[in-house]
Amino acid sequence: MNSEFFQDYYPDDVSHCYGRGRLNEQGLQLKSRWDGEETVAIFEPRPYHTAIPGFVYGGLLASLVDCHGTGTAAAAGYRAAGRDLGTEPPLRYVTAKLQVEYLRPTPLGVPLEVRGRIVEVKGRKVVVSITVAANNEICARGEVIAVQMPEAMTPK
Amino acid sequence: MNSEFFQDYYPDDVSHCYGRGRLNEQGLQLKSRWDGEETVAIFEPRPYHTAIPGFVYGGLLASLVDCHGTGTAAAAGYRAAGRDLGTEPPLRYVTAKLQVEYLRPTPLGVPLEVRGRIVEVKGRKVVVSITVAANNEICARGEVIAVQMPEAMTPK
Repeated sequence: MNSEFFQDYYPDDVSHCYGRGRLNEQGLQLKSRWDGEETVAIFEPRPYHTAIPGFVYGGLLASLVDCHGTGTAAAAGYRAAGRDLGTEPPLRYVTAKLQVEYLRPTPLGVPLEVRGRIVEVKGRKVVVSITVAANNEICARGEVIAVQMPEAMTPK
Repeated sequence: MNSEFFQDYYPDDVSHCYGRGRLNEQGLQLKSRWDGEETVAIFEPRPYHTAIPGFVYGGLLASLVDCHGTGTAAAAGYRAAGRDLGTEPPLRYVTAKLQVEYLRPTPLGVPLEVRGRIVEVKGRKVVVSITVAANNEICARGEVIAVQMPEAMTPK
C-alpha cells in the first residue's frame, strides 16, 4: 500500500468505526497523516453537523478530536516501535479519556484543520494534544489519552 | 406545551442541533427529562454508530454526554431562576468544556441510559456530571461545563 493516511492501514476488522473507518459509509471517514512531527487531518463538516445555525455541533468537534487522537496514537505507537504502519501484529488503540475545550464558536461551511501533537508514548498508552482550527483560528483544543485495545474488544 | 422533554421547549432557532434538535432529521434527537433531582435520557445507538464491531463509537458517547449535559444545564438554569421551561427570554447553553472517561467497552444493540447530576449552577455557568450505562453497568463517565450562549452565537 502506498497511502499517506493512517486509517488506510487499519485492518478491515477495525475499519467500520463511525469516525474513521474507511468501510463505514455513513461515517466521517476522517483521514489523518504525518506533517513533520505533528499529524493533520482536514475535515469539512456537513450541513447537518450544526449546533446553532451557522456553527458546528460540539459533539462533532469532540468526535474529530477523538478520532484524530486515536489515529495519531496508532501512528505514534508504530513509530515508537520502529515499525511501518500496517505491519503485523496490528497496533489498535482506543480512547481512555477525552477532553475538549470549546474556545470560540466554530463556523460551519469551511474546512477544519485538526492537528495532533504527541505528548507521550509510554507502554500501552499514548497521550495526544489536539487543536481544531477554522480559517486559521483555533476554535477547540483537546487531549486524548489512548491505550492499546483490551483483548476483550479484539474481533475474533 | 405539555412535554416532559427539555428539548421540546427549545426555540426553533436552536432546534437544528445535530445532537438534540427536534428539527434535525439526520441528528440524534436526544430527549432528556427530569428524574427527581437527576436527569435522564435513553438512547439506542444505530448500527452504524460502531467502533470495533459490536461496540459503540466513543465519539457518539461524547456527543451523548455533551447533549444531555447542555440539556440538563438549560433545565437547571430555568429551575434555578424559578422559571418554567420554554418561558421567555430563552436560556440557551453551550459547552465550554467536555470531559469523558471510557471505563469499559459499550455494547452496541442495547438502549443506553444517560444520567445527569447537577454539580453547580453559578451565574452563567452550569456544571453537570454525566454517566452512560448499558445493561445497568456504567460504561462512560463525563463532565460538562456549560455556559449561557454568547451573544455572537445568537441567531438574528
